[in-house]
Amino acid sequence: MEMTKEIRIGMVGYKFMGKAHSHAYRDLPFFFNEAPIPVLTAIAGRDEAGVAAAARQFGFASFETDWRKLIERDDIDVIDIVTPNNTHAEIAIAAAKAGKHVICEKPLAMTVEQALAMRDAVQAAGVRGLICHNYRFAPAIQYAKQLIAEGRLGRIYHVRAQYLQDWIMDPQFPLVWRLRKDVTGSGALGDIAAHIVDLARFLVGEITELTGTLETFIKTRPLGEMSGGLSATRDANATGEVDVDDAAAFLAHFANGALGVFEATRFAGGNRNGNRIEVSGEKGSIRWDLENMNNLQVYLHEDEPGLQGFRTINCTEEQHPFASAYWPAGHIIGYEHTFINLFATYFQSLVDGTPCQPDFDDGVQNQRVLAAVEASSQTGRWVDVTSIG
Amino acid sequence: MEMTKEIRIGMVGYKFMGKAHSHAYRDLPFFFNEAPIPVLTAIAGRDEAGVAAAARQFGFASFETDWRKLIERDDIDVIDIVTPNNTHAEIAIAAAKAGKHVICEKPLAMTVEQALAMRDAVQAAGVRGLICHNYRFAPAIQYAKQLIAEGRLGRIYHVRAQYLQDWIMDPQFPLVWRLRKDVTGSGALGDIAAHIVDLARFLVGEITELTGTLETFIKTRPLGEMSGGLSATRDANATGEVDVDDAAAFLAHFANGALGVFEATRFAGGNRNGNRIEVSGEKGSIRWDLENMNNLQVYLHEDEPGLQGFRTINCTEEQHPFASAYWPAGHIIGYEHTFINLFATYFQSLVDGTPCQPDFDDGVQNQRVLAAVEASSQTGRWVDVTSIG
Amino acid sequence: MEMTKEIRIGMVGYKFMGKAHSHAYRDLPFFFNEAPIPVLTAIAGRDEAGVAAAARQFGFASFETDWRKLIERDDIDVIDIVTPNNTHAEIAIAAAKAGKHVICEKPLAMTVEQALAMRDAVQAAGVRGLICHNYRFAPAIQYAKQLIAEGRLGRIYHVRAQYLQDWIMDPQFPLVWRLRKDVTGSGALGDIAAHIVDLARFLVGEITELTGTLETFIKTRPLGEMSGGLSATRDANATGEVDVDDAAAFLAHFANGALGVFEATRFAGGNRNGNRIEVSGEKGSIRWDLENMNNLQVYLHEDEPGLQGFRTINCTEEQHPFASAYWPAGHIIGYEHTFINLFATYFQSLVDGTPCQPDFDDGVQNQRVLAAVEASSQTGRWVDVTSIG
Amino acid sequence: MEMTKEIRIGMVGYKFMGKAHSHAYRDLPFFFNEAPIPVLTAIAGRDEAGVAAAARQFGFASFETDWRKLIERDDIDVIDIVTPNNTHAEIAIAAAKAGKHVICEKPLAMTVEQALAMRDAVQAAGVRGLICHNYRFAPAIQYAKQLIAEGRLGRIYHVRAQYLQDWIMDPQFPLVWRLRKDVTGSGALGDIAAHIVDLARFLVGEITELTGTLETFIKTRPLGEMSGGLSATRDANATGEVDVDDAAAFLAHFANGALGVFEATRFAGGNRNGNRIEVSGEKGSIRWDLENMNNLQVYLHEDEPGLQGFRTINCTEEQHPFASAYWPAGHIIGYEHTFINLFATYFQSLVDGTPCQPDFDDGVQNQRVLAAVEASSQTGRWVDVTSIG
Repeated sequence: MEMTKEIRIGMVGYKFMGKAHSHAYRDLPFFFNEAPIPVLTAIAGRDEAGVAAAARQFGFASFETDWRKLIERDDIDVIDIVTPNNTHAEIAIAAAKAGKHVICEKPLAMTVEQALAMRDAVQAAGVRGLICHNYRFAPAIQYAKQLIAEGRLGRIYHVRAQYLQDWIMDPQFPLVWRLRKDVTGSGALGDIAAHIVDLARFLVGEITELTGTLETFIKTRPLGEMSGGLSATRDANATGEVDVDDAAAFLAHFANGALGVFEATRFAGGNRNGNRIEVSGEKGSIRWDLENMNNLQVYLHEDEPGLQGFRTINCTEEQHPFASAYWPAGHIIGYEHTFINLFATYFQSLVDGTPCQPDFDDGVQNQRVLAAVEASSQTGRWVDVTSIG
Repeated sequence: MEMTKEIRIGMVGYKFMGKAHSHAYRDLPFFFNEAPIPVLTAIAGRDEAGVAAAARQFGFASFETDWRKLIERDDIDVIDIVTPNNTHAEIAIAAAKAGKHVICEKPLAMTVEQALAMRDAVQAAGVRGLICHNYRFAPAIQYAKQLIAEGRLGRIYHVRAQYLQDWIMDPQFPLVWRLRKDVTGSGALGDIAAHIVDLARFLVGEITELTGTLETFIKTRPLGEMSGGLSATRDANATGEVDVDDAAAFLAHFANGALGVFEATRFAGGNRNGNRIEVSGEKGSIRWDLENMNNLQVYLHEDEPGLQGFRTINCTEEQHPFASAYWPAGHIIGYEHTFINLFATYFQSLVDGTPCQPDFDDGVQNQRVLAAVEASSQTGRWVDVTSIG
Repeated sequence: MEMTKEIRIGMVGYKFMGKAHSHAYRDLPFFFNEAPIPVLTAIAGRDEAGVAAAARQFGFASFETDWRKLIERDDIDVIDIVTPNNTHAEIAIAAAKAGKHVICEKPLAMTVEQALAMRDAVQAAGVRGLICHNYRFAPAIQYAKQLIAEGRLGRIYHVRAQYLQDWIMDPQFPLVWRLRKDVTGSGALGDIAAHIVDLARFLVGEITELTGTLETFIKTRPLGEMSGGLSATRDANATGEVDVDDAAAFLAHFANGALGVFEATRFAGGNRNGNRIEVSGEKGSIRWDLENMNNLQVYLHEDEPGLQGFRTINCTEEQHPFASAYWPAGHIIGYEHTFINLFATYFQSLVDGTPCQPDFDDGVQNQRVLAAVEASSQTGRWVDVTSIG
Repeated sequence: MEMTKEIRIGMVGYKFMGKAHSHAYRDLPFFFNEAPIPVLTAIAGRDEAGVAAAARQFGFASFETDWRKLIERDDIDVIDIVTPNNTHAEIAIAAAKAGKHVICEKPLAMTVEQALAMRDAVQAAGVRGLICHNYRFAPAIQYAKQLIAEGRLGRIYHVRAQYLQDWIMDPQFPLVWRLRKDVTGSGALGDIAAHIVDLARFLVGEITELTGTLETFIKTRPLGEMSGGLSATRDANATGEVDVDDAAAFLAHFANGALGVFEATRFAGGNRNGNRIEVSGEKGSIRWDLENMNNLQVYLHEDEPGLQGFRTINCTEEQHPFASAYWPAGHIIGYEHTFINLFATYFQSLVDGTPCQPDFDDGVQNQRVLAAVEASSQTGRWVDVTSIG
């Protein structure tokens, strides 16, 4: 398929991530004048009223009530999958077979096997998959990557990452689809641990083995207004079992010898979106926190004794990746720009025919780590990540 | 003029603020589905190549090389002025006379007299002026305003505000238009002190008298690549006198008895965009810093003894003004959203026929404060702000 | 033994901890007027010149070159052991048998068996042991304990603790006694993980099982100026194997159902003394960092929506434990005051005949955790902490 | 007078500062083994029971009920004045005439004239005066001074200092002596503005002219339990006028061309002891806050672009002045150590016969600034500081 400078998007799903992706597509050309232009061609969803409203709200030119029709359309270059996790594989594989490039939200799949099948499908079809680990594309993280790649931190000893949220701490919070294993695969693990695993892989490299544990603090919840297809007729007081994790934690060894300590939870009160990572190497350290995502803290041991300390760098300057596209130094950007940066990079790679990460290989590797945590949680033993799948 | 739900914009000028406004117009409908929709109808600039490129980049449907033609067009509802300060009055008055609503960048004018004339012009024409003190529209500031209005801080004792930048500290930085009195009126005073004056007026009320001083640390600079109309043929080593302030500071009394301490400077190294304000009242205090603009620090004396301390509130929750339009709690927004919030509010007021602040009265009051600082700087005495103009 | 209001101290050892303890003894009566008065009676060390100098510097009235003589003296009430870890058990048990109360630096012993023998010895002798987990006695930690005990955080879900240092990151840093297993037992584990284990036990309760790992990043080091008894005649280029851990990490389950994630390392560049702990419960969270030890961050979910956020509390007010003994609010105290608070509490308990923690039972429990980490590090499995020893 | 290595102290007064000084004298020899040893010889106060108790609590060997007797004693080398401000001059001058060195709390006096008389008295007597601007002696401030003296910040442009407290915000807080002009001279001005004036003079140099204002927010208060000599028999509901300032603010020009903005207040809720100073020069900036007094934030423009940001330096390392006397890096010190460092320096200077600052010349200069603020507050004009007194 020959790509034009326009990238025609067909999106499947339209909840939070649908909003985030759509916004990024629309906003992208303003900041990246030279980048290919995403065209919001069509959006698919089962509920006609819902998808029609989403099309209007997000700005898609048309809609379909069956994603299969979307995939069949020849006016679409990229299928963007923002549906619950249990549907990713089928849609992605079908899209790839239809010759579409595929953008997929994380986690890539329900299992490593599915993830591998998805990866194989895009490879076989000669199309390119993208997994939406958007936080990689915060300028502060991109800059941290650059520092590490240049050897500024030296040999890496430590990775310490937490993703702390608190949105389901109320025991009366209902059993939404993100709390149902059949729809989502896992809880905090696939939803937010996946993000810090990606940041760690991006910055430090592959995890080779790990030992972990999963916790479910609130074991039953009201069925409430669950989405995801349960029968609408039910007892108002009905409760259901929570079969996914509320929290996940694991220790990891990296291929390069670093020691990783990871924790993801939805039960850390006061942390709305505390995605934090620290990396320490022989020559320095970095610290980052999503809630103040423009700042990178950097410690360099080469600094003059007496003047050594973590610098708080507002990564909005011309030296910081992607920052020049936006505003002058000190004028911060927000959450949505991580998607804009991600998609600008991906669309350019489609035009150029060059690799773009995080791709489905990254999705597979990430899924292996998640699967290893689940396996370890059951056996209580260290798991060789590379042997999974 | 009867307003439709579309607001057709004609912009005059196309530098940094042109980019910021254009972006906000384009992005606004995505987040504010019910708000009137700005239409980027035309943009004006003297240089045809430049304005044509800006039209393409920003997404305007057409362009003019004379702003007067823009004002004459009957397919435009609002004239948006983002040109250097010495042109604001002429354009705004002409626009008002032509029945256009007027958006104007700050400071409103070169003098209080000009500002008054602009205010009178919009009043006489029955159109509405908006001055772009966008920082009022950071959710954290809006929330602080709400707390103060509800009496949560009680009687206000103190306002402490600084706007600290460092972009012209290099003595070899050239004499750009922002450093030339004939074009800009003043230096840090009109450019950034104006912002903290607005925040203070918004949160605490009117300043009645003040004493201040202006400093110019670097008195001559290379002419360099000045914009603003100087002859292109000049000596590469030529220098010019800096006739505006590098820094401004003043003490102020507010109508409600509060004491204000204000400082704005372009010579505070390490502060790229350090717009900081603290307000203390009998029952509590707030602190805010633009570089981490989503956070508001709040101290409430009613808190239980032992548990008293400043809370760091990430103003991204449904209780925080404008936050619901964007992302879930903890997913921060950036600089550009202050404009989106500002314009959404203004456009709605145009449709509803209700007042919207900051308007040209705010511009006049702000200009009075700036003028009072200049006057005080010359006489060394306290100046009655209300008597100016 | 009947205690007078004077507590006569005999100290064994005189390095860093000797200085810290001696200072605390001398400074204590100034701040705690009603507390028993420690008298620096005698100090023991093998090197006569060294111990004589220490006696002068620290203010001890006499010295001994054999700790056994110290224990035999009848003018001493308390033996304070600040020697390397491999000597704790022998001295403590002998002291207890001689009817002395025993203060011992952490970790209590080289093994759980030793720790149990020490615990049994003080119990059999009817004397009281104290283990110097001084950080418990930072006012901010004591206040956190009080909040948790009052149920202000509700059921505890998470404990997250790190002790991050960087003092041996230089591979040329020599093989000092703290890096030799025969002298110290373990590395970061016993030296600093022991502290965060104690904080977690103090705040949240017992750890029941854990899985952990130990890392040694730099495996050989110059012998350098080792202390601890190696032959003085050696090759200047001689190196030795590091047989203790540079870093330790483990996941833990608490008796009350909380999940713990612990990490201690001497390889986290930029963190001179980063002892950090976070606890989250159903109603709130706390955060603390030793490098700013006066501050406690507290999040209470009961706070009004919109006003929820971590409060930064400077724990120097009358409501904060021990703070009244020192200075007015906002006048911070330092590291040394943790020892003063600890000893004031202990000496009072000796006079009152009441229990005082952390005692040797705490030392045993802490040692069980350390031993479990070592065991888990070898087997790769979860270890039942309660079954150890 | 020939000084021995012992410095015999006679203290006049015994409230908060009496406690702080006494503690420092007692604690000093432990940390500064080579320094002269202060001996707590005698303490004076009018109330026999009170001064006797203070002698016991602080550790003075004897007491007097008339300070004149203290000054007559020949077993005293230094008179330390910690009484209310209206007594400083008489005591200091008498002490100097009696050949005693004089330590005096700040502000030095009630007026510049008094301060000059005190300065002249010590000069005439050949004794050395010390004014207790202890915050100069925080290691972070000493290090900042060193950086500035070495030219690391280059030419200084800005000084921005605030001393924010909140202890008298309750209108029912009684009219204590610190709120009575006849006893204290001024309010926030002499009590806390004096401290930031000293920090600014220490770091940046002399203030040449200023314009300022004083505010009294609560104009009458209950007489309550006033100290300072009012009749004990009074109406429980009696109120008195507050004739000192609750807040002071001023703009200043320094001899070296820097612009200063100063503010001191007791009405900034949530700031228990917020003594903050920022200095910006052509090459860098520093920031400091007493509530986290071990940290210095340093920005150096020479840092590599992209890596520029404020470093947070924990000034507890061997490169930081005075830090080596205490604990290893990262083990912070507290408020009291500023006095220990100050006195260790002063006592050494007495033995060495070398100058030691801040001396009474500093006290005079500081008082000139305070007087200039008062004068400016009345005239509303800029005041030439150098012309005062």
